[in-house]
Formats: sequence, C-alpha cells, structure tokens
Amino acid sequence: MAKDLSNSVGIVETKKIEVVSKDSPLVLDSGKSLGPIEVAYETYGQLSEKKDNVILICHALSGNAHLAGYTNQDDKKPGWWDTMVGPGKGIDTDKYFVICSNFLGGCSGTTGPTSINPATGKAYGLEFPIITIGDMVKVQKLLIEKLGIEKLLAVIGGSMGGMQVLRWAIDYPDSVDSAIVIASTARLSAQSIAFDAVGRNAILADNNFADGQYYNSEGPNEGLAIARMIGHITYLSEKGMREKFGRELRSDKNYTYQFKSEFSIETYLDYQGQSFVERFDANSYLYITKAMDYFDLVRDYGSLEKAFESVKTRFMIVSFSSDWLFTPEQSEDMLHALVANNKDVSYCNIDSGYGHDAFLIETKTLGDLISGFVRTTREKLAGRKSNGSFTGTASKGLKMYERAKRTRVDYDLIASMILPNSRVLDVGCGDGELLLRLIEDKNIRPEGIELDQNLVAAAINRGLSVIHRDIEREINSYADDSFDYVILSQTMQTLKSPDKVFKQLLRVGKKVIVSFPNFAYFGSRLQLLFSGTAPITKELPFSWYNSPNIHFLSLKDFEKFCEHLGAKIEKKIPLIMNRPISVRIFPNLLAEQAVYLTSKKNKN
Amino acid sequence: MAKDLSNSVGIVETKKIEVVSKDSPLVLDSGKSLGPIEVAYETYGQLSEKKDNVILICHALSGNAHLAGYTNQDDKKPGWWDTMVGPGKGIDTDKYFVICSNFLGGCSGTTGPTSINPATGKAYGLEFPIITIGDMVKVQKLLIEKLGIEKLLAVIGGSMGGMQVLRWAIDYPDSVDSAIVIASTARLSAQSIAFDAVGRNAILADNNFADGQYYNSEGPNEGLAIARMIGHITYLSEKGMREKFGRELRSDKNYTYQFKSEFSIETYLDYQGQSFVERFDANSYLYITKAMDYFDLVRDYGSLEKAFESVKTRFMIVSFSSDWLFTPEQSEDMLHALVANNKDVSYCNIDSGYGHDAFLIETKTLGDLISGFVRTTREKLAGRKSNGSFTGTASKGLKMYERAKRTRVDYDLIASMILPNSRVLDVGCGDGELLLRLIEDKNIRPEGIELDQNLVAAAINRGLSVIHRDIEREINSYADDSFDYVILSQTMQTLKSPDKVFKQLLRVGKKVIVSFPNFAYFGSRLQLLFSGTAPITKELPFSWYNSPNIHFLSLKDFEKFCEHLGAKIEKKIPLIMNRPISVRIFPNLLAEQAVYLTSKKNKN
Repeated sequence: MAKDLSNSVGIVETKKIEVVSKDSPLVLDSGKSLGPIEVAYETYGQLSEKKDNVILICHALSGNAHLAGYTNQDDKKPGWWDTMVGPGKGIDTDKYFVICSNFLGGCSGTTGPTSINPATGKAYGLEFPIITIGDMVKVQKLLIEKLGIEKLLAVIGGSMGGMQVLRWAIDYPDSVDSAIVIASTARLSAQSIAFDAVGRNAILADNNFADGQYYNSEGPNEGLAIARMIGHITYLSEKGMREKFGRELRSDKNYTYQFKSEFSIETYLDYQGQSFVERFDANSYLYITKAMDYFDLVRDYGSLEKAFESVKTRFMIVSFSSDWLFTPEQSEDMLHALVANNKDVSYCNIDSGYGHDAFLIETKTLGDLISGFVRTTREKLAGRKSNGSFTGTASKGLKMYERAKRTRVDYDLIASMILPNSRVLDVGCGDGELLLRLIEDKNIRPEGIELDQNLVAAAINRGLSVIHRDIEREINSYADDSFDYVILSQTMQTLKSPDKVFKQLLRVGKKVIVSFPNFAYFGSRLQLLFSGTAPITKELPFSWYNSPNIHFLSLKDFEKFCEHLGAKIEKKIPLIMNRPISVRIFPNLLAEQAVYLTSKKNKN
Repeated sequence: MAKDLSNSVGIVETKKIEVVSKDSPLVLDSGKSLGPIEVAYETYGQLSEKKDNVILICHALSGNAHLAGYTNQDDKKPGWWDTMVGPGKGIDTDKYFVICSNFLGGCSGTTGPTSINPATGKAYGLEFPIITIGDMVKVQKLLIEKLGIEKLLAVIGGSMGGMQVLRWAIDYPDSVDSAIVIASTARLSAQSIAFDAVGRNAILADNNFADGQYYNSEGPNEGLAIARMIGHITYLSEKGMREKFGRELRSDKNYTYQFKSEFSIETYLDYQGQSFVERFDANSYLYITKAMDYFDLVRDYGSLEKAFESVKTRFMIVSFSSDWLFTPEQSEDMLHALVANNKDVSYCNIDSGYGHDAFLIETKTLGDLISGFVRTTREKLAGRKSNGSFTGTASKGLKMYERAKRTRVDYDLIASMILPNSRVLDVGCGDGELLLRLIEDKNIRPEGIELDQNLVAAAINRGLSVIHRDIEREINSYADDSFDYVILSQTMQTLKSPDKVFKQLLRVGKKVIVSFPNFAYFGSRLQLLFSGTAPITKELPFSWYNSPNIHFLSLKDFEKFCEHLGAKIEKKIPLIMNRPISVRIFPNLLAEQAVYLTSKKNKN
C-alpha cells in the first residue's frame, strides 16, 4: 500500500553541494583552514518570487538535513521534525520555503571527521580541525548564498540549533529578519560541560577508539553508547522519567540478582545507546560536543548585552519549564540581554514535563507560537499592519481571558492619556487587546508582560512582542525610562509586593498609568460599617477567603503611597460605573475605581 | 610538630572482627549464602554503664569505617565525618559511644568482592553474591551483638547510609530508639537508577575489567573513573557547580582547540575520577550501586505506609533543598508514610546550595538538629522531662522568632480550651513555646508544623517533633481525627487559601482552635470610614502594601465561613487588649481579636 503523504512534504531527497573548494579553504575560528567543504541539505515548499519566504532550520546534536518527509515509499520514519514542518503545519510548507542542512563536523553528508582528508586520502578522524558553532553558521551562510538567497525570514533552532540561530543573528544581522531560539542557551552551564566531558571520556577511553582511526574496524561503540546514555538522561526530566519508566522491571517479575539490565529505564538506555551507535560517528560526537562546550557569547563579547548590541532581528525565545539541561533561567539570561538592548523580543516558558526533549514533543504549543511569530514578522516586513487576528489552535487561552477575573477599566480612558507614536509597556497584557487597540488608534510601539502561558501565546500569535513573566520577580533588565508609558491595569491589588513593583515601573516608564478598585468606595465602607463583614461589591465580587485581591487600597492610600515612593500624580480620574467623576465630589468616598497617570519625581 | 588533637577523637584504629563463620554462613536476600564475614569497624567515646549511649553511623557509597580522627600522627586527612563526630561536636564523643563499620560488599576491610573466596583461594570478583541493603544491616546487627550491645540510642546515616537506617528501624524495631535519615530515600528514582546503570556500564565495558578478575593486573580504572565522574555531577547542584567552577578555564587563557580537559570542571572531574580509582574497587562499585538500585521499601511491603507500620523508633528526616539526587520530595514521601502511621517524626529541609554533598558540608545546621534530637531522645527514654532548653548554636532562629510579626494571643487562653493528655498539633508552632507550655501544664502529646527552618531546628533541638512544611501545601497524609486539638494561631489572615487549609485542619483535628485579628474592629472601621485609608492598628501595624495579612476577615466573616465549611463553633472568645469580653457587647464591633474553638459538623 502506498504511504499516505497528504499531510507530509512527501518523498524528499538529501542534496549535496560544495560550498568551499579545496583551493580556497575556509579559515576556521581556531585559525586552521578547511577545504573542500560539501554540505548536505534538504528544501521543502516553493521559494516566493521576492525570495521573502525562506525559513532556515538549524538541527541539534544528533539531527541531520532530513527534517521532514520520507526518503522513499518504504521509509518507516519521517524526518526528525516532521510533526512541525509540512503543509498546514506549524512551519507551513505551503507558505514558506524551508531549508535544513547537516552542520559542519556532522556525519550525515556534510564534511566532517568521517570525510576523506585530501591530504592523506583517508578519513580525517582526529585530523579534522576543531570547529565552532560560528564555523558551522559560516558554512550555512555559504550554502544560502549558493542557493541565491539573501534574506532569511526566520532562522529557527532548538537546543544546539538555537546556538546556531544566535550566531546567525549576531554574525549576519542584515540577513535575518526573525530568530527563534528554542530550549537553548548563550553558553553551556558547568553541569552541561561536565556531562559532555564524561561522554567524551567514555569514547576516548574505549579500546576500539584507536586514536580516531577506527573506520576500518569496530569503532568505540561502547564508549559512544555510554555517551549517548548520559545524554538521554539529561534530555528527560526526572518527573518525565518517573512517569514513563518509574522503577518498573522490563520483563522479570522479581529481581534477578545479576548484573544485567533489568529495570525498564536500563533497557531504554541500552536501546538508545545501541541505536545511536548504528547511525552516528564517535568522532563527530567529540567534535560537536566540543563546539557546544566552546560556545560562549559572554566570553566572545565581554557580556551578553554586548553580544546582542548590533542584532537587528526580531527575537522569540522559548524554553520549557522542566528542561534542566538548557534551563528557562538560561533563556531568561538571553531575554534580559535583549531587553537591555531595547531589542524586539518575545519570550514564552512553556509548561511541560518532557524536559529538554519537549522541543520535539510540544508541537502544538510551539507550532502556534512559531506560526504566528513568522506570519506577523512577514506582515510587518511587507508594511502590512497585522489585523490582530488569532490563528493559533490554542483557543483555550482566549476563553480564559474572557473569563478572567480582572475588571478592565475602559480602554478609551487609558488611550486618552497616551500620546501617539509612544513606546508602551502593558504589564499584565492578557492576549494583547489593549495594545492592539493602541496600535490602531495611537500607532504605539507595543510591548507586553503576561504571566499566563496561553495568553502569552495568543498575544505573540497576534503579532505582539510579549514576555512571559511574573511581574513580581523583577524587571531589572529594562533600562531607565525605556517606555513612554507603562500600564498597570487592575493589578496593583493582586500583587504580593505592590511597592517593589511600582517602584520598578516608575523607573522603566516615563509615565505609569495605574488603575485599581477603590477599597474605600462608599458602598464598601457602609457594608463593613453596618454588616461588619469584608465587603463584596460588583468590582470586588470575591469572598474574603478566595479573593485574588490581597492588598486593599483606597484612592487616598494610593496617593500616600505615591508620596512615599516619590511619585508625582499628573492626572487622576475617579470612576463610577466606568464613567469619570469630578475630583471635587469626594472621589475617595464615591469612586468605585480610579485611573492615575503618575511619574517619578526628580528623575535625572 | 605533633598534630593538635584537642578537637578530635585522636589517633584511632580500624579493628576487625569475624561476625559470620565459614561453617554457618549468612543466608542473603538473594537466597545465596556467604561466610566467613569479617567486619572492619571503629569506635569512639565510652560505652555507658547502662549501655544506653550507643550511636551507630552508617556510611554512604564511598565511605568506610574510618569516621573520625586520624590513623597516625602524619595522617593528612581525618575520617570522613570528623567535622560532625568528636568531643563537643554535633555527635559528641564525650557523651556517646559511637560505632561505624564498613558495610558488607565494601572494599575497606569488611568482606566484599576483593576478599578471598575460600572456595577458590582467590578474590571473589564477580563470584561474590549480589547483596542488599538488608544484608548489610544484618551484618551490622551481628557486629553490634558481638560488641555486647542490645540497644542503639540512635542510628544515623546520610545518602545510602540513610537506607541502612531505614532498614534498621524496620527490621530491628526493638533495637533502635531513634533514627536519623539524612538526604536519603525509600527507593531510588528512575533517574538515579539510570545514572548508576551508566556507571556500571562504563566499568563493565572497560577492556581491563576481565570479568572482574583484574586483581593481578591493571583494573578497569578508566571505567571506574567515568562512573565516579557521573556520580560527582549528581552530588553537586547545578548552582553549586556554577558558583564553584562556572566556565572557568583551568590554566589556559584561551581555548586550546584540542580534546584535552581545559575547563576547571573537567579537571575537577578528572581528579575525582583518578583519586577514586586509587582508593576504591570497581567490583565493589558494581555491587554497592546494585544494592542501592534494589533498595525499595514500596516493593518490599506493598506501600511505604505498610513498610513503617511496625517501627517503634523516633524519626528525624533531613533533606537539602538543592539535592536533586535524593530529593526533598523523596524525604517527604517517607515523612508522609510515617505521619500516616502516627509515628513520632520530625522533618527539616535544610536550605543549602551544596546539593547532595550538603550532608557532609552543612555541619552546623545538621549538628544542631542531631545533637538536640539525640539528647532529648535520651532524656525521654530516661523518663526525664526535657526542660525545653535550646542547646544549638543557631540562636538566630530564636531572635527571629522574638521579632516575628505574629501577635500571639495569650497562651493561657488556648491552654484553657485544651483537656489534659491530648494530642495537639500547633500549626505554625515557631520554636515550640506554646507546645512546651502545654506539655508542662496539660501533659499533651505535642506536634508542630512550621515554615521557618531556623524555628524548626530550634523546636527540634528542644525535643519537639516538628515538621518543616508550608501548611498551604497540604497535610493529606494525616489521618482523619489524628489530633484532639489543632491550633491555628494568628495565621488565618496570612494564608493564600484559608478555606483549603481550614478544611484540612477540621479533618485532621477533632477540635480546631483558631485565633485571628478582627478586621471589623471598631477602630479599624472608623479609620476607614473617616480617613478613607486602609486601617493601621496596633494589631495590624502594616501599610496596605507590605502587610503579611492578605485576607481580611471579621468575627462575622469567620462565622459565616464556618457555616459555609460545615464547622461548628463550640466556643468563642472575643478579646480586647488580650482580655476576654462578653459576647453580648457587640464583639464584631469591639473585639480586636478573637479565639474560637471549632469542630467539624456531622463527623463520622
């Protein structure tokens, strides 16, 4: 029976092309030269006439150019990211021209230690020069040029692929319109270097390694398998491993009291080690892990802030909550450095139990993020204003927002305080409704911070630059006066530390617009006075024990608070039933809520 | 110059004793028999006349019998836990008779794979039978008997040592008065089994392993070194490794572009691997890690609850916040099972960045816990009432408590509600002041839950059984009606989810005593009415933005809340200035705070 290819890029072929000749070799970061260099690559979809729909995918350690589709009708498994790349998928080959190439030093077609060294006529082995992530990207750039492409709409990569994306954005700022860095890092942690080093030790200690010249005999299979087993432990989360394997025995009911693999997790690792040995080269493993260990943007530029100084790319950083190899904290380091440079960056930390492997598994969430981000990037480049429509499949987020507990004050009122063409940060931006209106009405440059993952995904999908973050953590990375306006709408009373947050907002925004329910509203007061119970009003419809509002304040409280924090009140709009009332008619008593425009006094 | 031994157990000697003869071998858990068995051990301090001061220490994977002191004047390093064991130290050899023995299967004097197999006349190697933690403890019990000791005041062990402690408590309930289980688990996680399996693979794959008969040639040093390196990665936390090594290069300023160890973390691991090879046996490593992998109290008894059913021992469980090998969650699993069995158990999760290694490093905190726990256990056994004095060095905890923000209602008032000889749980027990008074006045059986580590340590040191826990997390493991009284004093208004917590307390306590500040207190109301600001009173001396009180309630609110949750109010004591007032004179208006005695309606 013929394979059903309707949902696939179909039968594909890995092509090869020489990008560096023997006569004019490439000078590597190590100072050594290498040539010829041949690159194995695949492409899917159609290049648009304007060549403005190109997406380059960078693969991770054990990947290759075979990203999607099947190599023949009998092929059992599709390419490594077939769930994401294809017609109508997250990276839609009906719309985009997608390229993936095996990286330099790999063992799947591109020049690497298994290639023939022209100087000796046999495989390079350890004669292959040490390469860096930068070298790999140089070779990818040469490939792109050979294909006649000048601009990449997006460069996308997970794990070590993300490192390549970072190098692309930094080394070729004019060639990359948007960069998506997934489950990656600007530099490996000591712990990751340690795991890599132990894996390399296992290969080097294998008696069959023969100084890397094992190609005519049995290679260092046991060493390579051990290295891969260590890798696999780090790709899964402890929880994921517990749920998948636990302490289950593979086949025996009782302990065998022998030194053979008997726990399911042991046989899983045996299998992973064995199957890796069959498809991967031990020398390549040495070179690639070393390139990862060496990757360090802080070392290269003095700081991560400096590394990102000259990038012109729109960034999306994605991490996974249970990834302990390339942690969310490492993604946040990149985020902070980009924010400090005032770059256009979105960030989402996807809640997932799959650990580092999540980048290959969480296709739906990741697909929504990628598709919206790339689509709106293209719209922006074409000068088309995004219509703010949501094209993702995670509609749950929007519903949640509609049911959100916050009582939004009238957007018109906030809009009335904002001058056109301003840079605006909406703290707790939800799915971006307010920001989208402000773009429409005031042509603002919008940015958002939001805690809820689904709302972040929805807002990013709608073309907004949004950072997934708990505002209470800190926003130190924003420079002083980064924004013309910062909006904190109906959130003050739900914060654990309103003083810390407000102080930060006054620092990063020239003006801060704050709205909150008035706890001294006459109705509330009377309720407390006469009934002696904590007030429940239309604006505060919660019982004392389940309210998200944990700090109650009145207009007067807020004004004293501003005085205390050195904030100037520039405008004050008390509201009854969402309509402004005069400040002369006892607002502290009568207003149900209020909107304030504030700024920091004595700012330099 | 002579070594200064004033702070040490001095020059010590490892003794050996045969505990199993060749003629009547020990039957192991595997069904195989082993004999003779010789045990290497050390002792420090003096055995008391009543033999009631014996502490047994169980060592971890790479430890041995040489716990403290020096083997000779020129010895550079003392025993492995010398910081904890010695005159005046956490385990005080001036007071206690301390024993430590190398476990079965080890390679430091006790019978193991390096010992001569009487059947062949050469080292056992892989002929050595597979052993379990239970087998190790059986051999320790034989040693103790040989030494003429019937009862152990305490059995203490960290990591794999903790597994032995658990077996002691379960297998010999009448021989163990108290058990201290540090950074341990009732069963390894899948992830830990995975790390162990990879380490064993590295040894078994080493060409020099020679099926375990390598004693007359170079052993599987590279394999053993790799196993040890993996181990060391798991002993440190990511953060600890980052702070200790980061991405620092060992000696070169620039990358060498060679496959040699150049990052500090690499040379550290090389060193650890190498020094381990010099002092440890690869076969022992195989046997010991297998014994750890097999250890599983859930498997042995059907559930952890059943495993602990028959223990009679006072327990203290200690974990470390950054330990990802034997996690705090695993310690909590043991805690829950002990709690479910109504056993006497204390728990402290020590905040530390040192990962699993913390059990050898956090000497001060751990020393306070151990010294107080053992001292008060001995006092209890001797029928002496503990005087509640604090002998620890972490006095900071007590000061913090004195400065604590809570306003405690009069202890006398709570005491007046409690019948003598009751079992009482104080939720948020601080350093145990209230519980100690209730012991004195009402002879209660006290238990406490407390969030602050220093207060937990202080309370445990004073002889109380206290669990280190955020009450908001859940207390599901307590059976219904576990306590005659549960006390929640001045805490309700600081909880995120007072309804969930109170519901749980009503379930686990026959009666729940609750006290809280009255937010509808007349003074507050007037302040809000006339000044229109969130009230600041003597009992609520915080501004709206920094108050730990996040849910405001009045007497009326609480009464409606009780109705809502199906709680009966048995007694109500409104207070002005800590003095009871009549319920007839408008308590909701006039009371500054109140104490309620409640219980669940329609309880089975």
